[in-house]
Amino acid sequence: MTVKCSKCNNPAIIRIGYANLNLCKEHFIEYFESRFERIIEKYKMLEGSKKVAVAVSGGKDSTTLLHLMNKIKDKYGIELIGITIDLGINKHESKYSAKSVEYAIKNYELLGVKYKIVKVSEDYGFTIDDAAKKLRRPVCSTCGLTKRYILNKVAAELGADTLATAHNLNDTAQFVFHGYFSGDVENLARLRAIAPAEKGFIKKIKPLFLVPEKEIATYAIVKNIPFITDSCPYVALRLGSRSQTILRRKIEEIEDELPGFMAYLVENFENKIRPALEKEYGIKEEEKEGHRCKICGMPTPPGRDICSFCAIRLKLTSAINTI
Amino acid sequence: MTVKCSKCNNPAIIRIGYANLNLCKEHFIEYFESRFERIIEKYKMLEGSKKVAVAVSGGKDSTTLLHLMNKIKDKYGIELIGITIDLGINKHESKYSAKSVEYAIKNYELLGVKYKIVKVSEDYGFTIDDAAKKLRRPVCSTCGLTKRYILNKVAAELGADTLATAHNLNDTAQFVFHGYFSGDVENLARLRAIAPAEKGFIKKIKPLFLVPEKEIATYAIVKNIPFITDSCPYVALRLGSRSQTILRRKIEEIEDELPGFMAYLVENFENKIRPALEKEYGIKEEEKEGHRCKICGMPTPPGRDICSFCAIRLKLTSAINTI
Repeated sequence: MTVKCSKCNNPAIIRIGYANLNLCKEHFIEYFESRFERIIEKYKMLEGSKKVAVAVSGGKDSTTLLHLMNKIKDKYGIELIGITIDLGINKHESKYSAKSVEYAIKNYELLGVKYKIVKVSEDYGFTIDDAAKKLRRPVCSTCGLTKRYILNKVAAELGADTLATAHNLNDTAQFVFHGYFSGDVENLARLRAIAPAEKGFIKKIKPLFLVPEKEIATYAIVKNIPFITDSCPYVALRLGSRSQTILRRKIEEIEDELPGFMAYLVENFENKIRPALEKEYGIKEEEKEGHRCKICGMPTPPGRDICSFCAIRLKLTSAINTI
Repeated sequence: MTVKCSKCNNPAIIRIGYANLNLCKEHFIEYFESRFERIIEKYKMLEGSKKVAVAVSGGKDSTTLLHLMNKIKDKYGIELIGITIDLGINKHESKYSAKSVEYAIKNYELLGVKYKIVKVSEDYGFTIDDAAKKLRRPVCSTCGLTKRYILNKVAAELGADTLATAHNLNDTAQFVFHGYFSGDVENLARLRAIAPAEKGFIKKIKPLFLVPEKEIATYAIVKNIPFITDSCPYVALRLGSRSQTILRRKIEEIEDELPGFMAYLVENFENKIRPALEKEYGIKEEEKEGHRCKICGMPTPPGRDICSFCAIRLKLTSAINTI
């Protein structure tokens, strides 16, 4: 028996468990887009923003975010610019980075959004494949650090006042739950859906932080958004953290039994628990000022001469020695 | 193939996943008792205690706690007294309370520990069966409130300076995880393994808060501790919270895949997250003073004339009107 849409007589294409809705294609698109805007409004994500840099990897989350931001840009009077990083991931001839960049460009051109491609090998003299081979540090951690560093730096250079990234609800719930388990309170204190501009960094927003991965994937498919479906070869090799993988699977199982679980976990973290952690473990006001990396000039925690990114770059390149 | 004990050649009776140990009966008893004492030491639970009231329901956790406390009482120079509450639970002729009290007494007499039985129907004029029939409030919540109220009151009346309860690791992990999910930060802020004496309340300790239920059950069985194996008929009727039940099962599944998960979750809560929540959401120092229930004289939160227990008792009894 076909399940009918809760709002019309058409067949439903998705069940939204936490809202107890079955929705057809048209009503799902309407629901999804209006929920996205409600989150933007509730958390005042675009208040004061004029130029928003959207980080686009080419995957379903970031390409969907680009389409959604493009849809609301006139209403909120913002200008968009896309940033895509070519990380140089080609393990097992996967051409993963090359393909990802292609998909990102397809979306920029489809929507007529200006963009900047940053090639890590050209601008910084190494690739993530090099990091995987030469560093003892887990490759996913180096890759995350590299992306955060470049996005912060390039968004500011391009004149953006806001950086939007596409972390979805499943990512956020996993991070929160893993932090509760591991006790990494310093990182939990920093995990914000909206981080105001602070000395050296522009404002950062995560407009999809309450949107489940399943809904994003469904939206991308029904809207024919082009996105890369390959997994990163390092993720496929299970080089990620075993505990992260287990906790993510369990969170998704709980969501199936207790619809809304992920959103409650994340909203209660964001609104009630994180503020208490920030007061106790956050970077103190006086520490936020003036500490800069001696190599690149980007902000770095007090007590450090060189930022984590430059430290890694130093290890991976010889060219850096000439700076 | 029989699994051998990690410490001798005897067959193992239990696997302790988080310590990567398989243990025979003798080595398990040694491990379990020394871990119990290490927790008492680490959290300085008996510092300053002279007379400890142990809450004994007759179940595996509380009877085991009584045996463990009895074993260390001379070393720590403490006197013990047991408190058992006859809650008046007899739904479906289960005789649950009558049987529970019998098991508690068996243990007191076996160990020669002095004890006090408090019959709720005699001292307070109602039973938990009455509460289940007459109140809209979930029965497990009324029962919990009744037990906390009576234990606090009676322990002080008996001259104890410390009240020990048998909440195990699984209980605590469930409570913490449910609080993260539901955002009940006020209750999370109060959830302490050791609560110092505060105006009107004696010190409270939970010496089993880091001990998994499986280990407690195994210890009770191999030590031939008599305990009631029946479930409370209200729990059996699934009158408990559905979300609590799901989260407890999921926590136990995660523990199987990621041994040590529950202890990490609880210790990181206790040592890092709860202190931040207490500063933000805990009862303020000035609010702790002097507010008393006008009926019973026990401490009650500011702004309330009558404590929650007396309010419930008022609803359930007519006798109370003569006070």
